[in-house]
Parts: sequence; C-alpha cells; structure tokens
Amino acid sequence: MKSEEQFLELIDAHFPREHDFLALGRGDDCAVLRGGSDYCVSSDLFLEGVHFRREYFSAADIGYKALAVNISDIAAMGAKPVAFTLDLMAPPDLPDEFWDAFFKSMSMLARQNEMVLAGGDLSRSDRLGMSITVFGAPGSTGFLRRRNCAFGDILFAVGDLGLARAGLMALEKDGPAARETLPAAVLAHLRPKPKVMIGTLLNAAGVKGLMDVSDGLARDLPRFLGPDLGADLVLAPGKLNANVISYAESIGEDPAAFAVTGGEDYALLGAVSPFEAGKAQSVPGYIQLGTVTKTPGITLNGSPFKVAGFDHFDT
Amino acid sequence: MKSEEQFLELIDAHFPREHDFLALGRGDDCAVLRGGSDYCVSSDLFLEGVHFRREYFSAADIGYKALAVNISDIAAMGAKPVAFTLDLMAPPDLPDEFWDAFFKSMSMLARQNEMVLAGGDLSRSDRLGMSITVFGAPGSTGFLRRRNCAFGDILFAVGDLGLARAGLMALEKDGPAARETLPAAVLAHLRPKPKVMIGTLLNAAGVKGLMDVSDGLARDLPRFLGPDLGADLVLAPGKLNANVISYAESIGEDPAAFAVTGGEDYALLGAVSPFEAGKAQSVPGYIQLGTVTKTPGITLNGSPFKVAGFDHFDT
Repeated sequence: MKSEEQFLELIDAHFPREHDFLALGRGDDCAVLRGGSDYCVSSDLFLEGVHFRREYFSAADIGYKALAVNISDIAAMGAKPVAFTLDLMAPPDLPDEFWDAFFKSMSMLARQNEMVLAGGDLSRSDRLGMSITVFGAPGSTGFLRRRNCAFGDILFAVGDLGLARAGLMALEKDGPAARETLPAAVLAHLRPKPKVMIGTLLNAAGVKGLMDVSDGLARDLPRFLGPDLGADLVLAPGKLNANVISYAESIGEDPAAFAVTGGEDYALLGAVSPFEAGKAQSVPGYIQLGTVTKTPGITLNGSPFKVAGFDHFDT
Repeated sequence: MKSEEQFLELIDAHFPREHDFLALGRGDDCAVLRGGSDYCVSSDLFLEGVHFRREYFSAADIGYKALAVNISDIAAMGAKPVAFTLDLMAPPDLPDEFWDAFFKSMSMLARQNEMVLAGGDLSRSDRLGMSITVFGAPGSTGFLRRRNCAFGDILFAVGDLGLARAGLMALEKDGPAARETLPAAVLAHLRPKPKVMIGTLLNAAGVKGLMDVSDGLARDLPRFLGPDLGADLVLAPGKLNANVISYAESIGEDPAAFAVTGGEDYALLGAVSPFEAGKAQSVPGYIQLGTVTKTPGITLNGSPFKVAGFDHFDT
C-alpha cells in the first residue's frame, strides 16, 4: 500500500458503510450505533508472533480468524453480532495482494454474519496485528452470562475440545505440511467457526449460562463456575474428534486430558438445569461434559485434574 | 508483571467495574452497554515508535495520552464519553512500577470524565502499544457531524494549532530537555487535553458541525468541508500560541503556515452560521479561523495554501 487513501479505498471496496444498527457509518470522528437495544461489547487482539504466524497462516486465514475469535465472544453471550471496529497495525512492505485477500476474507465472514465495519484506525507497524471490537444485540432471553450455575447442573460444550491445539502443535512442528496429516485439527486452528447460530439456539433453549472456551476447558471452567463450585467431567473417546485422539496418542498423552487442556477451541461451554435440558440437548453438536459439583476443583473421568493452561506472562 | 492474573488485579485496583451505562461490567465474554440512548463509537491505536517514544514519554504520559486522543473523538461529536475498552500489547520486561504509573494516570483521566473501563484484552508484545475503543452518549442536540457546512459559514477552532507539532519537533531534536525551552508545546504533545466540556457547550450553542483536528488543520479541513467547499483562513499572530510563533520563527517558517500544518493538535474545528454565531463565540478558547468558500481549496492570509500533512504509508 502506498498511502492511507489507498487503504481506505480498498476497505470501502470490501465493506459497505450502511447497516440497520448504524445511525452514522465510517468517515466521521465516530460512528453512531442506534439506541433501543442493549449492546454487548468485546475486544480482542490478534498479533503476529503471538496469535498467528505468517509461515502457515495465509492472508485470508489471518483476516478470517481475527474477526472470528471476536464473533465467538458474541456467540458466547447468546447474542447476535451486528458491528465491529478494526484497528490495523500494518507493515508497509506487505504487497497489495496480501491486503486484498485479507479484506476479502474478513468481509466475507462479516457479510455471513450481517455485520458492518463501523470504524477503526490504521497505523504502520513492524509487525502485523489487529485489535477488533465487536458489538452484539441480545438473543431471545437477553445475554447469557458466566457464574450462573448451581450444584447438579449439567455442563455441556458445542465444538471440538483440544482440536485446535492439536492443529497448532502440528503446524508448529511440521509447518503447512500438517494440513495433510491432521486436516480437521489444522482447520480448527486456522479457521475456527464462531457458533453464532448455536449460541442463539441455546439462548432460546433456556440454558443458564454460556462461555467462550479460548484458554482450554480446564482453565476456563473455574471462570465459568465461579469460586464456590467445581465440575465432574466424563469424557469418553466417543466425545472427542478423531484427530484429537490420534494426535494425543502420537505424543503419548491421554486424549481426554489433552482435550480439556485445549486452547483456542472457540467452543461454547454451557450449563443447563437437568430438569430443563431437553431443548439444549437437541442443539446440533451438543456434547455432555458432566455435572456441576458442590466444591471447587475438577475431576476428569474419575480422577482429580489440574492444569495451568496458557499465560501470556508465564516465565 | 509475572502473570495475567497480576495484570488483572492491578487493573481492578485502578478501575471500578460499575457504571450507570453498564448492565454488565468486565469479567464475562462481553460487557453490556445499556440501551436507550444512541452511542457514538471510535477506536484508535497508540503505538510505541509510531505515536510515542519512551525516551521522552513517561509511563504516566503514555497512559494518559492513549485514552485522551480517543476521548477527543467523542468531544468532536459534541458527546459525553461514558466507557472504553483497552487492548494492551505489553512487553514482558517492563517493571511493575511502569504499569502502576500507567494505569494510575489512565484511570485518573477516566475518572475525571466519568468513564468506565468495560473490557479489553492483554497480550505480550515486543513493543508497547494499545488500542482503545471509546463510547459516548449524545449531547443536547445529538451528535455533531462533519460535512454539514454551507458557503458563508464561520469556521472556528478551540485549541492551539501547531503547538503539539512544535512540541514533537523539539522533543525529537532535544529529548526531555525541550520541556525547559518550550514547556507549553511539549505539554501539548505529551498531554493533549480532550475538550469534552467545550464540545458539549458548542453542541448546545447550535454549531453546525465539529471535528477533531488530529492530522493538521490543512489536511483535516477538506474532510470537514466535503469535496465541494473550501476555506478562506485569516490567522493573525494574536491567534497563535507564543510557543508556536517562537518555534516556527526559530526554524525559519511562517508561524501561520506552521500552525495549519499542525498534527496531533486534538483541537476542535467547527462551523457555525454567521447568523447564529453568538453563543459559540462566547465558548472559552473560541478562535475565529475564517469562512467557508464556494469552491474547494484553502487560502491562508490571502494566499493559496497546500500541504500534504502526515501519511503513515508515505514513502
């Protein structure tokens, strides 16, 4: 790209400015979101060298995933994404073809979800990166929160636990060649599917809470349950993706333990009362994980389970 | 910082979670902004090596300015800032004292403006940086837009044009020592004051449009006027800050030309009908700039004026 103007023209070519939820679109000091409904808001970074590598992420993969991981937070509220802002950190040496593929892929995902690009910022930077803020409108019962479980509730997930982690590990070891050996796992890492429709269905099905599993189930569960409750998980091999089982076994790990250690699953974790579980259980992809226990801590297939998970500042 | 937990604890120590405009605060997949009113939204990057240098920005300066430049966009809508999200790119080697000063300064500015930190993200990064998204509620006549001027309207500014640029140039040349020689200019660059109260007053005073001057008046004016109009500017020395005059003369430039070339002024540029200008003219800091002309282009003190201004991708 030669100038900011050229960037803005390319963005205008890919992203419409108008949307039912916008009273004012891109091009002023601010955009204006129409009032009337509550809005849920979330913001996520997607940075080269931290969240992705250009060695095995194509421009289209990067544009897609940067937005997808944000939409996933909206889905986890049982909400409907409507708009987003994009702050783009762009190395000046990337070719025009890169940006065309990047915006094309991001705009396709936005269009599929009927989202509008409401604004953002652009800066040169040594490393490629983006910060996206997304806005969602409430689902049929409003927004689904964390920490709304009780002893005896059923815990469930929609999405493959551990699959994206297997993909990441294989990509880090073998590079793009991993696409051949573990296609489902690699796809789960490069192109996680935000579960907007599923979240909406679970909201209508009367589940008590929902959460985006991004740091691995074992690390995210305590955040979902709160400090006073625990979980008894039963994960038979039939509940795991075949790529997770084969990858875990290839590195000598227990597949269930590998799955709950996960990371970047972008699966939905939910809780539902056992007396009202019927509708939720009929949602496509529903996987029963176990039950909420009276005391903190996690047991997995009968044994206590502990894991640190990923920390950006662990030394 | 040793862990994400430690970061989050420090953030909780500095930023309250509750606010009238929030139905749900930090700690879930999303925060929830209460409906009812329209919201204006803007997002800006603040990156080390692009927007600031640690050689002469203290931790407190960085925390302050990252939020201030965002609030400035809300002020330019004649709106009231209410909330923001913070995506933080943090080099792991920065000491705890840095973060304490950074958050203290940012939270003080947030408190002064009655804004709540609604959420965000945290990632390690080689370079320090932040992406902030701000939300504002409408002022007394709603939101003030650009491109709402007519031939004959009076153009005005509130804020010192060119002052921050003089500060930046002096800091780049002399480092922190520039604080002694050009104190007002250096302060304008390190600690720009977002003009929220002024924007609200101008909104109530019935001005036709308002804009945040961040790339220099000469570059921002066409964006404010739209493609069909121009401006005839008359900038006598009395309208310029003494630091701007002395700095421009010290480098052999015309002070008025230097002022309109500006950059990072975070001044408000506005237009008002000559028949309704009385109230606006009584707003503190009001500086008459000139009038809107029938044809595109800018004249400054009688001569045509052209400037490229700053482009992130100019080569």
